[in-house]
Amino acid sequence: MARQLEFWFDLGSPAAYLAWKRLPKFLARTGATVVYKPMLLGGVFKAQGNVSPVTIPAKGKWLFGDLARYARRDGVPLGYPPEFPINTLALMRVAIGLLMRKPERFVPYVDAMFDALFGQARDLRDEKVVAEALSAAGFDPAEIMALAADPEVKQALIRNTEEAVSRGVFGAPTFFVGDEMFWGQDRMDFVAEALAV
Amino acid sequence: MARQLEFWFDLGSPAAYLAWKRLPKFLARTGATVVYKPMLLGGVFKAQGNVSPVTIPAKGKWLFGDLARYARRDGVPLGYPPEFPINTLALMRVAIGLLMRKPERFVPYVDAMFDALFGQARDLRDEKVVAEALSAAGFDPAEIMALAADPEVKQALIRNTEEAVSRGVFGAPTFFVGDEMFWGQDRMDFVAEALAV
Repeated sequence: MARQLEFWFDLGSPAAYLAWKRLPKFLARTGATVVYKPMLLGGVFKAQGNVSPVTIPAKGKWLFGDLARYARRDGVPLGYPPEFPINTLALMRVAIGLLMRKPERFVPYVDAMFDALFGQARDLRDEKVVAEALSAAGFDPAEIMALAADPEVKQALIRNTEEAVSRGVFGAPTFFVGDEMFWGQDRMDFVAEALAV
Repeated sequence: MARQLEFWFDLGSPAAYLAWKRLPKFLARTGATVVYKPMLLGGVFKAQGNVSPVTIPAKGKWLFGDLARYARRDGVPLGYPPEFPINTLALMRVAIGLLMRKPERFVPYVDAMFDALFGQARDLRDEKVVAEALSAAGFDPAEIMALAADPEVKQALIRNTEEAVSRGVFGAPTFFVGDEMFWGQDRMDFVAEALAV
């Protein structure tokens, strides 16, 4: 029986971006299937009493260097949009909206947004920049962004975020294999071991 | 030329304990020499605006499981004293005092205290328990603990802690290779790469 893992993420997390980039090979190697779990990391932080590591200056400074080392090791470009951390509410609503309404377009959307944010360091606060990135990935921007205003989509993101909190998620990316939780792009080796059991 | 690394630690950190246990093989494998840097982690946290991860309940819960996975992988026993986190002020004064006055006894002392705290989960708040652990490791407890009251030793621990803060340390263990800083028992692979350059 193929094993399953859950991938909890927010598009605003550069660590989640690195994990996302590794995921295709990871799934091929482990033979696992993935359940994507979009959540709002800001909501998770607030509920758990956690804060973005960049709010502690020494930790933030170290973390940028640390992620850069992983990106070099992975051969993945890593930059930061002009505002960081960013507000991902609309982007994450669209992510979960696609999972609900056009699941086959979910991965291309997340690819496009992660690449725009952390591959190309684009300013997604600007709707025109978002529209450009979506068009380049073959989406109709107006159709896609309308999902962010859909009440059922909004509710689904709230529900996922609440589920994350109730299951002990406090950061991103977070993986689950069954009930076992793994936090961080740097714990994928343990995720692979859990999948192999 | 042999490369050098600095190992910044506090005896109260279970992550530093795991790194300490790996250090002999790590040094043998890399051919590096180590400069031990005792610091007071509580002072570092305060100065950097950081907090112990266990103060965020969801993060603390995950971290205990995460460290347990590393301990299993390493084949190292890992438990926790009845009070955790603990106050390590006297223990760390003795550590730096030995480095100043009897450097050849520094490693046996740190071995004994880390093993008592996290190998055997002993309550080092009790002076008799500390004395037992020291005696078992071949120390004269009264002579050793007197170092904790030595004004020069106290000053040296303050100086190291201030140096840690000024160089951007915000947690333990922290490694430096030259000016490059690595935080965490889970970053020793990057430390090895930095030493190999």
